Amino acid sequence: MGTSYSSCYHSTTLSTHSLLLSHPKASAFHPSRFPNPSFKFHFTNQIHQTHLRIMSQKPSQVLGGKVEVGETQEGVSKGPMIDFHGIDEGLVEKMVYDALVWSSLHGLLVGDKSVQRSGKVPGVGMVHAPFALLPMPFPECHWKQAYELAPIFNELVDRVSLDAKFLQDSLSRTKKVDAFTCRLLDIHSKMLEINKKEDIRLGLHRSDYMLDEETKLLLQIEMNTISASFPGLGCLVSDLHRGLLNHYGESLGLDSKRVPNNPAATKFVEALAKAWIEYNNPRAVILLVVQPEERNMYDQHWLSALLKEGHNVSTLRRTLAEIDAEGKLQPDGTLVVGGQEVAIVYFRVGYAPINYPSESEWRARLLMEQSSAIKCPSISYHLVGTKKIQQELAKPNVLERFLDDKEDIAKLRKCFAGLWSLDDSDIVKKAIESPGLFVMKPQREGGVKWFKLCSAVVVMTSVINESLLHFREQHLRQ
Amino acid sequence: MGTSYSSCYHSTTLSTHSLLLSHPKASAFHPSRFPNPSFKFHFTNQIHQTHLRIMSQKPSQVLGGKVEVGETQEGVSKGPMIDFHGIDEGLVEKMVYDALVWSSLHGLLVGDKSVQRSGKVPGVGMVHAPFALLPMPFPECHWKQAYELAPIFNELVDRVSLDAKFLQDSLSRTKKVDAFTCRLLDIHSKMLEINKKEDIRLGLHRSDYMLDEETKLLLQIEMNTISASFPGLGCLVSDLHRGLLNHYGESLGLDSKRVPNNPAATKFVEALAKAWIEYNNPRAVILLVVQPEERNMYDQHWLSALLKEGHNVSTLRRTLAEIDAEGKLQPDGTLVVGGQEVAIVYFRVGYAPINYPSESEWRARLLMEQSSAIKCPSISYHLVGTKKIQQELAKPNVLERFLDDKEDIAKLRKCFAGLWSLDDSDIVKKAIESPGLFVMKPQREGGVKWFKLCSAVVVMTSVINESLLHFREQHLRQ
Repeated sequence: MGTSYSSCYHSTTLSTHSLLLSHPKASAFHPSRFPNPSFKFHFTNQIHQTHLRIMSQKPSQVLGGKVEVGETQEGVSKGPMIDFHGIDEGLVEKMVYDALVWSSLHGLLVGDKSVQRSGKVPGVGMVHAPFALLPMPFPECHWKQAYELAPIFNELVDRVSLDAKFLQDSLSRTKKVDAFTCRLLDIHSKMLEINKKEDIRLGLHRSDYMLDEETKLLLQIEMNTISASFPGLGCLVSDLHRGLLNHYGESLGLDSKRVPNNPAATKFVEALAKAWIEYNNPRAVILLVVQPEERNMYDQHWLSALLKEGHNVSTLRRTLAEIDAEGKLQPDGTLVVGGQEVAIVYFRVGYAPINYPSESEWRARLLMEQSSAIKCPSISYHLVGTKKIQQELAKPNVLERFLDDKEDIAKLRKCFAGLWSLDDSDIVKKAIESPGLFVMKPQREGGVKWFKLCSAVVVMTSVINESLLHFREQHLRQ
Repeated sequence: MGTSYSSCYHSTTLSTHSLLLSHPKASAFHPSRFPNPSFKFHFTNQIHQTHLRIMSQKPSQVLGGKVEVGETQEGVSKGPMIDFHGIDEGLVEKMVYDALVWSSLHGLLVGDKSVQRSGKVPGVGMVHAPFALLPMPFPECHWKQAYELAPIFNELVDRVSLDAKFLQDSLSRTKKVDAFTCRLLDIHSKMLEINKKEDIRLGLHRSDYMLDEETKLLLQIEMNTISASFPGLGCLVSDLHRGLLNHYGESLGLDSKRVPNNPAATKFVEALAKAWIEYNNPRAVILLVVQPEERNMYDQHWLSALLKEGHNVSTLRRTLAEIDAEGKLQPDGTLVVGGQEVAIVYFRVGYAPINYPSESEWRARLLMEQSSAIKCPSISYHLVGTKKIQQELAKPNVLERFLDDKEDIAKLRKCFAGLWSLDDSDIVKKAIESPGLFVMKPQREGGVKWFKLCSAVVVMTSVINESLLHFREQHLRQ
C-alpha cells in the first residue's frame, strides 16, 4: 500500500564529535539496514525513564521510575523463533490491515507531512504512526539489565549535573567548535554567576541500547536528557503488538503474554504530576515547550490528556518565540506565560540549533532557566546528555567521582561502548581501516540521522587533518 | 480553523413519497437551519436499538436492547440552561482544541474526502468526525419515552416483517413508481415462492425523533432498519461531551454527570455476538457488507474491533460486487464468502439505488437472502423500514393488527407524526399553503438530504398534477 512501517527511533543531526563502537551484527534496529521503505520487522531497544529529585523537601529521596519499550524472550542463546520474512503473505496483509485499523482507533497517529496544517492543528491530516508490525524477540536478561540500569543512570545524571566545573571543563573544547553547545554553556555560566539553585529537579530520559551479537553485551548508544520522544506512542505500539499476537500469535508461534507491559506514558505523567505537586500551586500549569510545527503532536497530546484526566493538571503549549513574547518573570522568580503561573517547563524542543532561529528563542530559554519553575530538563541536565560528557564518563575513574556504590558503577561500565573523540588519531586510523566496526555520533541531540562510518570513510580521510569544526561543516554542507 | 462541527445525523436521498408533519419550532437538529458551515451547538435525537428474535430455539423471547444517544435535562418546561452563543470566545477556542485532540486520540474519525485513498485504506487521510461541541439540553421525560419506545418498535418491525401480504399490498403502488423498491419486493416475492423462513432474525435499528416545541410531543421521524450508522462514533461523542464538561462544565453551568451513558456500540456488538452464537459455528464469520469507498469506515471498525476483542468473533468486509464474485451457496444453504462460512450478513450498504450500479450487486443481495445466514436486515425487515409502511402503520386500526398490548399501541401512536402520501390532494394543498409545517421525506433510506417543503413549494405546484414518478424525477434532475 505504499505506506512505510518502521519502529519509532530517535535520530540525531548530522554533526559529529564522538565515535561509538558497534558491530555490524548488532541486532538493534538501524534504519540504513532497511533501504527499502516498505515492510520492516524490527524493534527498538529504548528505555524510557523518569527521574525526579527534590532537594529542599526530601534531600535524599530519588523518585526514579523506569519504564520500558520492548519485547523479551528468555535466554541469550535462542535466535528468533520465526523467520519473519517467511510469513504467509495473506496473513501479513491481514495483520497490516488490522494494525492500521487499531492505530486509527487508538490514537497511534502522527500528522501527515503531505497535509499542510497537520503539524499545526490537531484532528486534521492524520496518518498512522510508523510502527513495526511485530515485536522482535529480545533476550529477557538484557531487557532486565536495561531496566536495572535506568535508576542508576538517573542518579548519575543528577550527580553530574551538580558538578558545574566538571561540565564546563569537559565541554571546554566542544565550546570552541560548536556554537550551539557554546550558547548552552553560556546560560549555564550565567546561572552559576547568580548562584541559581534547582531544588526540585525533574528528568524524563530515554536510554537507547544496541545488543551486540558477538560479545552478547547490551551497549548504550546514548542517553536522552532533553525532549525524549515517543513515551505516548511507544506504549501504544506494545499494546498493538499484544493485540496482534492475541489474534495471530498461534499462527506465528508467538505468545502475546511475552510482550512486556510498557507504561512509559503513565510513568512520565506520574513524574510530571509528582513534580507539579512539589511545586505546590494548584493553579499553576505545565508549560509544554513545542515546535511551531509538530507532526509528532499526538505523542505529546497523550501526556497532556493523561495529566488532565488522571491528575487534573493543565498543560499550556507554547513555542520558544511565543514564550519570549508572552513570558514574564515576577520579582520572586515566578514564571508567568499567557497569564498563567508555570510550575514545570517541559521541553519537547530546544535540543538543536534549528530550534533557535533567532535571538528570541535564546531569550526564552534564558528566561525560563532564570525562573523558579521546575525545568525538565535544566540547563545542567541538558548538558549532561551530550556525547562529550558520555565519553568523559566512560574514562577510567570518572564514574567513581559521582557514584559510591561499586556494583552500580560496574553495571554502568558494563554497558559502555567504546567512545572516542576524533582527537585520537590512532582510533581514527582504525576506524578508516574498519569502518563497519564504528558508528559516528553527533555531539548533541535532534535532527536527521546517524552518520555511518562505512559511508563516510572517504570524506573522512580527506578532512582528517583539518579541524573538527571544518570536518563538521564539510558534512553539513553536503 | 475552517473545520465544521456538527452532530452526526442520518440523512436521506432526494426522492419523495410521504409527507411528515413537523413544526418549524421543533428543537431537534435540522441541517438546513444552520446554513453557515462553521460552529454549531446542537444535538441529535436518535435512539439506537437492537433486536434479535430467535424463533426456532426460543420462540417467545425478544432479546431487545435499547441504547441511546443524547443528553437529558429534567422537566419539559426548562429552557436551555445557558446561551450557547454567549460563551466566551477564548473558552470556546480552548474547548475546540481539546475536543479535536480528544477525537484524534480516541478514534472519533472519518476519512478526509480530500485524500483519495481515505475511503479505501484505514490509517491514512484521517480527520476528526464532525461533532457538536456541547450537548443540547433535552427533556429527560422525552428521552425516557424514546427509550421505552425502542423495544415496542422492535416488536412491531418483527411482527410486520412476518406479514408478507401486508408488505406486498402496502407497497403495491410504490412498486409501480419506484424501481428500487420494486427490486426489493421481487426478492421478497422470490423468498415467498421458495417458502424461505428466517428462524433467527436480527435487527439493528435507529429511530430518529424530533421534539415538537409547540405540542411538547416527541415525534418519530423515521425508523432505520438497514445500515443504521454511527453506533460506533455516536457513543464517543457522548464520552467527548462528558470529558469536556468535566473540565469546562463549571464555567458553562453544565454538569457532566447529566450526560447519559451511551452504550450504542457495545449493545450493537452484543446483539451481533448473540446472533452469532445462535448460528452455532465457532468458525463462521460476520460478513460486513460495505461500500467500495467508505469514509465512515471507523464507525464500522469500532464494531469489528469490539466483536473481536470482546467476543472473539471475526468480521469479513466485502462489497456487494465482491460477494457476487466470491460468494457461494452450499446445497444446505450455507453462505461461503472468501472461503469462510458466514453466520451473519450485516449490511452497511444496500439501502439506495446507487449501491446497486449493476446486476452484480442485485445477484449478491439475492444470493445472501437465499442463504441460511442471519441477515441484518432480512429483505422483510428492510421493507418494513420504508416510509410507505410507516405511513400505513399510522392509519387507524393498523397497529392493532400487529400488537396486542393496548398500552404499547398508545405509546407508539403518541409519537406518530402525521404522514400523508402525495395522493391526498387536500393535504398537498395544505402543504402548499403552509410549507413551513411540513417536511417531505423520501420513501427509502440513504443519500443526501431531506427535502424541505418551504423551498420545494414552487416546484411542487408545477408538478402536482403529474404522476409521482414524474415528480420524483423532476427533483432528482435538479
